Amino acid sequence: MSKSVEFYFDVGSPAAYLAWTQMPRIAAETGATVHDRPMLLGGVFQATGNRSPMEVPAKSRWMEQDLARHAARYGVPFRLNPHFPINTLMLMRAAVGLQMRQPEKLRPCVDAVMRAIWVDGRDMNEPAEVAAVLQQAGFEPQALLALTQDPAVKERLKAATQEAVARGVFGAPTFFVGDQMFWGQDRLDFVKESLR
Amino acid sequence: MSKSVEFYFDVGSPAAYLAWTQMPRIAAETGATVHDRPMLLGGVFQATGNRSPMEVPAKSRWMEQDLARHAARYGVPFRLNPHFPINTLMLMRAAVGLQMRQPEKLRPCVDAVMRAIWVDGRDMNEPAEVAAVLQQAGFEPQALLALTQDPAVKERLKAATQEAVARGVFGAPTFFVGDQMFWGQDRLDFVKESLR
Repeated sequence: MSKSVEFYFDVGSPAAYLAWTQMPRIAAETGATVHDRPMLLGGVFQATGNRSPMEVPAKSRWMEQDLARHAARYGVPFRLNPHFPINTLMLMRAAVGLQMRQPEKLRPCVDAVMRAIWVDGRDMNEPAEVAAVLQQAGFEPQALLALTQDPAVKERLKAATQEAVARGVFGAPTFFVGDQMFWGQDRLDFVKESLR
Repeated sequence: MSKSVEFYFDVGSPAAYLAWTQMPRIAAETGATVHDRPMLLGGVFQATGNRSPMEVPAKSRWMEQDLARHAARYGVPFRLNPHFPINTLMLMRAAVGLQMRQPEKLRPCVDAVMRAIWVDGRDMNEPAEVAAVLQQAGFEPQALLALTQDPAVKERLKAATQEAVARGVFGAPTFFVGDQMFWGQDRLDFVKESLR
């Protein structure tokens, strides 16, 4: 029986970025397959009544330190995006669109967007910035923009987000190993345990 | 130079209970002294705009599993209290009162209260239950009740809570190693690292 872990994420979550950087290691260490589950975190918050930890100033100040401590532990670059929060609707539509139409391009696209936001501090609220980032990563910005306007893609992101909420997701990143749910990049050790 | 860690807690927090059970181990493994810092978590939430994770139903359902997973990892008994949330004003006044007047009795009292709430499922919103728990633990309930009515004790709990907020505390448990703050029973490994 092949093991697998589902990874629910939104590129606008710094914790999801940290987890994203670790998924190849988790896969290598456990032999599990990672199934990417793009969703719209704003939609999850709206449906569940949850909210970003960044909305509580004292928590936000601590989160910045905590994320930096985890980044140092993982050995990955990280800085909190100065344009946070980012409206990720178009970006996550592009992600599910690629997953539907050119699945092999999902990860390179998410890699480029995650790096732009959580390493390079780019302003991904700006369409021109998004286009520049995507072009530099070898994508055709106009084609991706068209993808985000495709009704089937819009619908798929909505459905994926609703499905996440129906399974109990309230934040990002969230992992499922079978029916077992784990929330947070700080639960990767439990994910690994569960995969063993 | 002797190492020390400050431990901010409220007996009404299940995560603070889990951390409480681990502090003797942290002290033994690092050689650090633990300084107990009782505070009123409700006051911290009010001052910071933070709220209990239990207020978001999906998060609450997951938290229950997550706390149980950590309890299993630590090898300590735990069950979510059926009378949650608990108004801990009197209990935390008793804690600071003991700290002021009979500091050697603080830990036995908190041990008894934590166990009553997070192991035995007692209803500590009920004064008669509180009295029974304290009596069984060798305390004089009337004397502790009198302590909670002492203006100096009331004032000390307020001041301790305000001091916690001023230092950046927004939840429980919170640890300080010098100026470094760590939030959550799931950050004990970072606390240990910082103490080394």
